[in-house]
Amino acid sequence: MERHFHEQLQKLKESLLQMAAEVESSIAKAIDALVERNSNLADEVIRSDDVINNFEILNEEQCLKLLATQQPMAMDLRFITSAIKINNDLERMGDHAVNIAERVKILSEEEQLKPLIDIPRMAEIAQLMLKDSLDCFIKGNAEQAQLVCLRDDEVDQLDDQIFRELLTYMLSDPKTIARALHLIIISKNLERIADLATNISEEVIFIYKAQNIKHHLGDHEQRHIDTK
Amino acid sequence: MERHFHEQLQKLKESLLQMAAEVESSIAKAIDALVERNSNLADEVIRSDDVINNFEILNEEQCLKLLATQQPMAMDLRFITSAIKINNDLERMGDHAVNIAERVKILSEEEQLKPLIDIPRMAEIAQLMLKDSLDCFIKGNAEQAQLVCLRDDEVDQLDDQIFRELLTYMLSDPKTIARALHLIIISKNLERIADLATNISEEVIFIYKAQNIKHHLGDHEQRHIDTK
Repeated sequence: MERHFHEQLQKLKESLLQMAAEVESSIAKAIDALVERNSNLADEVIRSDDVINNFEILNEEQCLKLLATQQPMAMDLRFITSAIKINNDLERMGDHAVNIAERVKILSEEEQLKPLIDIPRMAEIAQLMLKDSLDCFIKGNAEQAQLVCLRDDEVDQLDDQIFRELLTYMLSDPKTIARALHLIIISKNLERIADLATNISEEVIFIYKAQNIKHHLGDHEQRHIDTK
Repeated sequence: MERHFHEQLQKLKESLLQMAAEVESSIAKAIDALVERNSNLADEVIRSDDVINNFEILNEEQCLKLLATQQPMAMDLRFITSAIKINNDLERMGDHAVNIAERVKILSEEEQLKPLIDIPRMAEIAQLMLKDSLDCFIKGNAEQAQLVCLRDDEVDQLDDQIFRELLTYMLSDPKTIARALHLIIISKNLERIADLATNISEEVIFIYKAQNIKHHLGDHEQRHIDTK
């Protein structure tokens, strides 16, 4: 039973990592599509959202199965309930990538407003935050998770900077207004992705702190005595 | 044990309803502050976010406690894992109310752009969606939850309409650009609140459908045989 539980937990971890890789790839593609003005690539992001949604359904089923059949305790319980929330967060990041892709399709029909530097930079940080937060979750690394949370400020600053710069474009030339608005909304979507990555890292810190508080429950085998 | 479980579950339901009432009140206050150009009221929304955050912590602890000590099965298990996600969604709605309040503080310093009709209307629908989705969750009413999901389209249409109208303001008079942008972002925050309410209703449908699939597990008492 114990071995079976850990195999199932391992399967869940791998599936969450695969899902996160899909989400990362969607964000990367959406921003590549923006920079390259590539409407086909944006369509690819929109189509591949189904893959992410399927992962969400499978992972949630797996979490419920683990809760129902294994009755995990202490840190394992927290890991699984956090996995439910993180699974949800990853699905929403996928939705934000789709939102970006939809704006890219509109922008690809219009003349380019300006060469993009800050938005791809922001996307790069957000992707890294997502990757690192998932790594921290899987490996239980709360120290590293603290660092992910700190990077959220960097993203917020970039979002502010992008907002202010695009505002000056809008003020100096009304012909830029619609395009600048789409870029502002793309920036807001990236900011939300970084927020969701921060939530994941906060979850990791929560699991870790709870483990500290509950260390008197003993080692892993002991924690399972009641339920096996 | 059975009675104790239901008392605890009842306590969780009441706490989620109270939290939802706080979130509703924050949204209402943020929009009143916008309409009345009342910076103090906006500050009140920002301050009361702590109350919502404390609810989130308490509710999550309660969910984990129920999972760890009662090992619920079938629909009860789904109810509690959904409660974890809904608790999270409510907290985010509170964050969106704070985002709105922050924009209101900036707008209160500026001359009014236009009398607001669509944004308060959108807020009213979003609040009602939140209230109804929580009601459906607590009462297990999946039919009503379907109706909540349908209203999301109405909110999306209002968001589009607000976007287009404010765009015409920006195009015709550059002096309106900054204020119009804040209103667009307020509208986007309301649209996110309605999305989150829709998520809650989708959860209700998920619990209900799963109950249908699992009806062979028998009535409530039977489902608990294994774990009591």
